[in-house]
Amino acid sequence: MLYNYKMVIQYEGGRYQGWQRQESTDNTIQGKLENIFSRMCGYPTQVDGSGRTDAGVHAVGQTANVRFREQYAPQEILDYANRYLPEDIRIASCIEVPERFHSRLHVVRKTYCYRVHVGRVADVFTRRYVYHLPEQLDLPKMRRAATELVGEHDFRAFTSAKKGKKSTVRRVESITIEQVGEEIRFTYIGNGFLYHMVRILTGTLIEVGQGMRTPESVAEVLASGDRALAGYLVPPQGLCLMNVEYP
Amino acid sequence: MLYNYKMVIQYEGGRYQGWQRQESTDNTIQGKLENIFSRMCGYPTQVDGSGRTDAGVHAVGQTANVRFREQYAPQEILDYANRYLPEDIRIASCIEVPERFHSRLHVVRKTYCYRVHVGRVADVFTRRYVYHLPEQLDLPKMRRAATELVGEHDFRAFTSAKKGKKSTVRRVESITIEQVGEEIRFTYIGNGFLYHMVRILTGTLIEVGQGMRTPESVAEVLASGDRALAGYLVPPQGLCLMNVEYP
Repeated sequence: MLYNYKMVIQYEGGRYQGWQRQESTDNTIQGKLENIFSRMCGYPTQVDGSGRTDAGVHAVGQTANVRFREQYAPQEILDYANRYLPEDIRIASCIEVPERFHSRLHVVRKTYCYRVHVGRVADVFTRRYVYHLPEQLDLPKMRRAATELVGEHDFRAFTSAKKGKKSTVRRVESITIEQVGEEIRFTYIGNGFLYHMVRILTGTLIEVGQGMRTPESVAEVLASGDRALAGYLVPPQGLCLMNVEYP
Repeated sequence: MLYNYKMVIQYEGGRYQGWQRQESTDNTIQGKLENIFSRMCGYPTQVDGSGRTDAGVHAVGQTANVRFREQYAPQEILDYANRYLPEDIRIASCIEVPERFHSRLHVVRKTYCYRVHVGRVADVFTRRYVYHLPEQLDLPKMRRAATELVGEHDFRAFTSAKKGKKSTVRRVESITIEQVGEEIRFTYIGNGFLYHMVRILTGTLIEVGQGMRTPESVAEVLASGDRALAGYLVPPQGLCLMNVEYP
């Protein structure tokens, strides 16, 4: 019998090599958390996240779980970790959950947000969280293109992952594009996203907004399954994992 | 005849020794701007700000002016400076103004905002711009105390400046205190503020909110003119110069 704890984790990704623990560096978010929990309980621990985030990508709602041999008060886990974590990583909440709960396998829905700042002058206070692209983007056209991407599709054309045996079919529930001041926010909700998928979708929509491709052409890219036909990979700092939902 | 340009300047103050140029360091915002403008025009320039901000204090609406011997397109000045400024300082706008305009002498009104984050867990994304004080603060009491401070008063008790010949009378038009999520925002509007005044006012109001002093006692502090009776100096990173107004 193990005691299982579910945590919501926030981080500014700029200083890290992404979520996933790596042999070659201890500069990952998963690695930082595992080190701290192992020190707390005195034996090696494993922190399972809802999925990886790339180097430079942020999270306000990453969700993970960790199992211990003994029971802790959730508040004790939260306070201990926040005392030793660097200040760009925080555990926002922690609750005890049934032993079988798994933060990756049981995901129902994820929300990602990509922020593009289109003002002429870069913004001092949001610069770490936006992609600065001082251009006019055609919102109605980008919204029309987005409707072609919503639904259950094979998104092979929109991933940097090598072709393998794993399914590249995902269900995108919605893509909303809104302008807030000088910022354009792309919000993606779906049951899962492939490696680089949100950033390539955004790059493709931006090319539509720039008039470099038509809204309708996006359906052809999807049908082709060819990465070379999709748009460019936008930089990581505009991306944030907002929320992960479970049954 | 000189050509005079008024600029709105934004900066994240965390890395700087404050606004004012100093002999001992080139790490000031005024110093950075003067160096860039001198390089642009080929002779020494002087950038006059609406007032100093302390080390660590931010600005979204600092206002300054600079005079040149020859005429430039304002957009040219803005683009040149933003190309060479570090990314935590930006010129947000630039316009040509009459030669006599002076950004310090002609100030009518300034707005400062001080942000306190009262949540238990520090916030990853706003941590550079707030003072984290995980405590319950009594808003109605703080608001009652604030009414004692509004108006034209001698604020000698609320400054770290040494006693001198200069007047310590200032007119505070309003102090508003609002809660936004886990944040309490103190907004000060007035015709001018003494050295450390906003931060000492905020520290005093916080002590009222903690129940350490009564709302009414604030009037006595004001009347005493004694710095030792006022509250503590809150840290700089919660403070931001929001706006400077001219006739």
